[in-house]
Amino acid sequence: MKISKLVGERVKETPNGVSALSHGLLLRAGYIKQVSNGIYTLLPPAQRVTKKIENIIREEMDKIGGQEVLFPVVMPKEIWEKSGRYYSIGQEMVRFKDRNNHDMLLGMTHEEAAVHLCQNTVKSYDQLPFMIYQIQTKFRDEARPRAGLLRVKEFTMKDAYSFHTSQEDLENYYKQVYDAYNRIYTRIGMKNFISVGSDTGMMGGGRADEFQLLIDAGEDNIVICPKCGYKSNMEVADSVIEKCKFEDEKLTEIYTAEAKTIDEVCQYLNVSPKQTIKAVCYAVVGNDEQVVIAFVRGDREINEAKLKKVVGADVVVKDLQDTGLVKGNIGPVGLNGANLTIVFDTTLEGQCGMIAGANKDGYHLKGVNIERDVKNAKFFDIAKVIEGDKCKCCGDPLTIKKGIEVGNIFQLGTKYTKSMGMTIHMPDGSQINPIMGCYGIGIGRSLAAVVEESADEKGIVWPMSIAPWHIYLCPLKNDLPEIFEKAESLYQTLSKDFEVLYDDRKTSPGVKLTDSELMGIPVRVVISPRSLENNQAEVTIRKNGDKIMVNLDELNDWLKNYIRGEING
Amino acid sequence: MKISKLVGERVKETPNGVSALSHGLLLRAGYIKQVSNGIYTLLPPAQRVTKKIENIIREEMDKIGGQEVLFPVVMPKEIWEKSGRYYSIGQEMVRFKDRNNHDMLLGMTHEEAAVHLCQNTVKSYDQLPFMIYQIQTKFRDEARPRAGLLRVKEFTMKDAYSFHTSQEDLENYYKQVYDAYNRIYTRIGMKNFISVGSDTGMMGGGRADEFQLLIDAGEDNIVICPKCGYKSNMEVADSVIEKCKFEDEKLTEIYTAEAKTIDEVCQYLNVSPKQTIKAVCYAVVGNDEQVVIAFVRGDREINEAKLKKVVGADVVVKDLQDTGLVKGNIGPVGLNGANLTIVFDTTLEGQCGMIAGANKDGYHLKGVNIERDVKNAKFFDIAKVIEGDKCKCCGDPLTIKKGIEVGNIFQLGTKYTKSMGMTIHMPDGSQINPIMGCYGIGIGRSLAAVVEESADEKGIVWPMSIAPWHIYLCPLKNDLPEIFEKAESLYQTLSKDFEVLYDDRKTSPGVKLTDSELMGIPVRVVISPRSLENNQAEVTIRKNGDKIMVNLDELNDWLKNYIRGEING
Repeated sequence: MKISKLVGERVKETPNGVSALSHGLLLRAGYIKQVSNGIYTLLPPAQRVTKKIENIIREEMDKIGGQEVLFPVVMPKEIWEKSGRYYSIGQEMVRFKDRNNHDMLLGMTHEEAAVHLCQNTVKSYDQLPFMIYQIQTKFRDEARPRAGLLRVKEFTMKDAYSFHTSQEDLENYYKQVYDAYNRIYTRIGMKNFISVGSDTGMMGGGRADEFQLLIDAGEDNIVICPKCGYKSNMEVADSVIEKCKFEDEKLTEIYTAEAKTIDEVCQYLNVSPKQTIKAVCYAVVGNDEQVVIAFVRGDREINEAKLKKVVGADVVVKDLQDTGLVKGNIGPVGLNGANLTIVFDTTLEGQCGMIAGANKDGYHLKGVNIERDVKNAKFFDIAKVIEGDKCKCCGDPLTIKKGIEVGNIFQLGTKYTKSMGMTIHMPDGSQINPIMGCYGIGIGRSLAAVVEESADEKGIVWPMSIAPWHIYLCPLKNDLPEIFEKAESLYQTLSKDFEVLYDDRKTSPGVKLTDSELMGIPVRVVISPRSLENNQAEVTIRKNGDKIMVNLDELNDWLKNYIRGEING
Repeated sequence: MKISKLVGERVKETPNGVSALSHGLLLRAGYIKQVSNGIYTLLPPAQRVTKKIENIIREEMDKIGGQEVLFPVVMPKEIWEKSGRYYSIGQEMVRFKDRNNHDMLLGMTHEEAAVHLCQNTVKSYDQLPFMIYQIQTKFRDEARPRAGLLRVKEFTMKDAYSFHTSQEDLENYYKQVYDAYNRIYTRIGMKNFISVGSDTGMMGGGRADEFQLLIDAGEDNIVICPKCGYKSNMEVADSVIEKCKFEDEKLTEIYTAEAKTIDEVCQYLNVSPKQTIKAVCYAVVGNDEQVVIAFVRGDREINEAKLKKVVGADVVVKDLQDTGLVKGNIGPVGLNGANLTIVFDTTLEGQCGMIAGANKDGYHLKGVNIERDVKNAKFFDIAKVIEGDKCKCCGDPLTIKKGIEVGNIFQLGTKYTKSMGMTIHMPDGSQINPIMGCYGIGIGRSLAAVVEESADEKGIVWPMSIAPWHIYLCPLKNDLPEIFEKAESLYQTLSKDFEVLYDDRKTSPGVKLTDSELMGIPVRVVISPRSLENNQAEVTIRKNGDKIMVNLDELNDWLKNYIRGEING
């Protein structure tokens, strides 16, 4: 490819409003262009990287017996009604009416389509297990698309679905997919990725694992025990939170004036946050009347993912106006109402001598003993893990790292096959709903994650396996006929064995070298009047800056050797 | 691939309501499953064929300098407003509001996205010409999806867009794409395809050509001159229609009783249809008040594509109720009204002695002389060519064939770059709107068209180049251990060099042989107790039924030779 014809331009400055590293670099280096909020066009270099990632995924899916299919982007309401998700998924699913007034939707995942395909198509136990996958466009109407390709509305995803006759068979296959995922991320050049236990969210089902690239720019919080290896997404992370012991005393109302937040109350009363009870109020999505009040020890935060599971519905922090609740003075004693769901975190179980709101402006209660003062209190683990909490497995202190989720795998169970009525004949004549697993990888997010992890201050650094081109051929002073001719002939020769981006522009060396670094092509081959004097080219390795002078007669062999080695790891 | 695990089943009977050959075969052989009207899931064999077609297209696009990109499926209203097509395209374009009440649409073509990408990205004349293409899902809300993959709502399309500084440059490149298209259809195994001049329709612009697979099951009519090679889609086809000479006479009203149609009037008056004037009434889409009356010689039909161009709007045949027009007695003499657009076909120019409706129930006029009796009559070519018309180029009789449109290429001109304001700096300092070409191929329709052309009474017959598997390995009586073991080892060996579908089922020979034929795999390798006696396999060539006994020691070489030859044509 001659760069003079390559669609896309390279720019020096990061555009305004761009914070994520990969977002800025992919824009600046001519890889992506925004069409709408969270919607991008991939320029030729990005599409080349995408195709390579897709092919690596395809190879690994095929290796574990995957069969590639293609489900539609647009689906009819009916199959999503059967699974119940037509109603349970919110605004992130696009719904529209077709010209015949038929309800349609844009697929954001394809469990329903997978069951629709296999239902009445696969009928007998001996056809299982099997796995089907697709690489296809998906659309999720994200509330807050951000960070370029890291969080978008439209994206290409590899999604796979396996079908099994027993949980044991699913677990065996799940392990195979798990291994394939590890191979995929390794092959596309990710280094610091891990798998962690995760929430099953809207997918339903039992066990789920996420693959996370650990990186400071990530937006997910990952809880890790450096000693025993416990790893979990914050959403489902557990820890041992040490109970406090305060003296049991009688319940007393105390004046706390304007003190409302935990900090203010603690300062006013000169107590530790651990001795207070924090209240957070939530509205239940889709049920405006219902209010959830979550109580947690004052030094802790609510883990909303856990709370949602307890409540069995989506919740959002509620504006207290018109609720009759006294902001900053809400407490569990005497609190009730038909529309109130009250949830206590396990940190409060058995606690006494606590300070809580008195449900009265300007007042708190001291000496709260939950067992004594609150009838039928129900305790659930709804607190967020914090750095230094003790590991539930080994008791050592936990650390928290940031991660980018680059893939996930789920044990779905029979949620979809049961609700949609897919059955399989078993050898004993009975019929069962097959047990499913599902397995996703976001292609664009993986691409951006690699950029986040590998980039340096000069720009992108592509791993060889997914680089848009292997070589950046960069003649300096190619307005000189001897340089021009040598460059043209090298371009012809090298293109036979490698993917070459040829900087044929008659522009300054500075522009060319800077562009080669910004674009992240793994190997740069420079020829100049000086190098040609010795019949040499200057080869620069992007990832470490190593410079090697290579004799032109040996260049092809040298490159073959190096590039092959890099691709094969 | 073992057929026991292959997702999809083969069925004997064509499902009800299926008329197109390819639709029936693709359903019966386990290639597609309908999810909704005009929306299909591709099963593994169809996706394998699709990938091969895509790769052939990709290779040919890359050969002519194409750069692969990926435009979004979902686009914002804004860029389609600039081109004007947000309003000019009707119900076939899906529009919806996103969660922020922003107007969005599903792309049915990507001219706007292509200009959006290149605008402010490509700035200088020396970056042109270039061509970008994508292979991506499109959605058109077709009024009448039909015939399986031949006319669907959702489909994968290769669409390409080229940009030029002059019409001459576009024409040069257009020729290159034309040649690439010929190579593509040849490589995917189409035989009887041709290119024909076509209508530019909603794309706008100048010249356009369609690639048509000539086949009786096609729904397009193609006008062909066997002598000089003139070829045109019926929509824009021209011919020389011989004028008739009738005696000029005075205008007389005659009673024609219940005679309304041309046939009835001709019979009643004992004249030839050529002596009559046919009237057809149309409503203008989007302008309910306007009525178009098209007059053509009685032996001819109206070509609505031509009429639409004359009118400058979409038209549909009108119900005459409440119009004041007398059904079956409409004629040009004395016909007028503010809401009437009257168009005469050129066959009527200079004619006299004609019979036409008298605009009065039960009466016609004879002796109509249009020049004399109709003031300011305007004549346009709006008649359909019929078999036997004389070729405009050479005068020989034309024939009409049926075709399936499998691709099209357009010279767009500056319609999109002008309306969207994309400019290019020219060497003289001026700025111009670059001139565009666009080039489409429907992947699924091409797949179905190959099936239509190649299938026989036993099922699909895939060309080797796009076959889902090269070989159908078919052991008979594989419940016998010696057959089973031989088959398993052959499967291992053959899979190293070929794509093999292995019929490992322990079912009857009849079922296996029938399935291999239905699925259309090019080469079937049968081993049986009898063939193994002579250390042989029976090789059957699907396309011609040839059967060859090949020694097992030579099987690999034999297959390599045959399959390579088939792929390379």
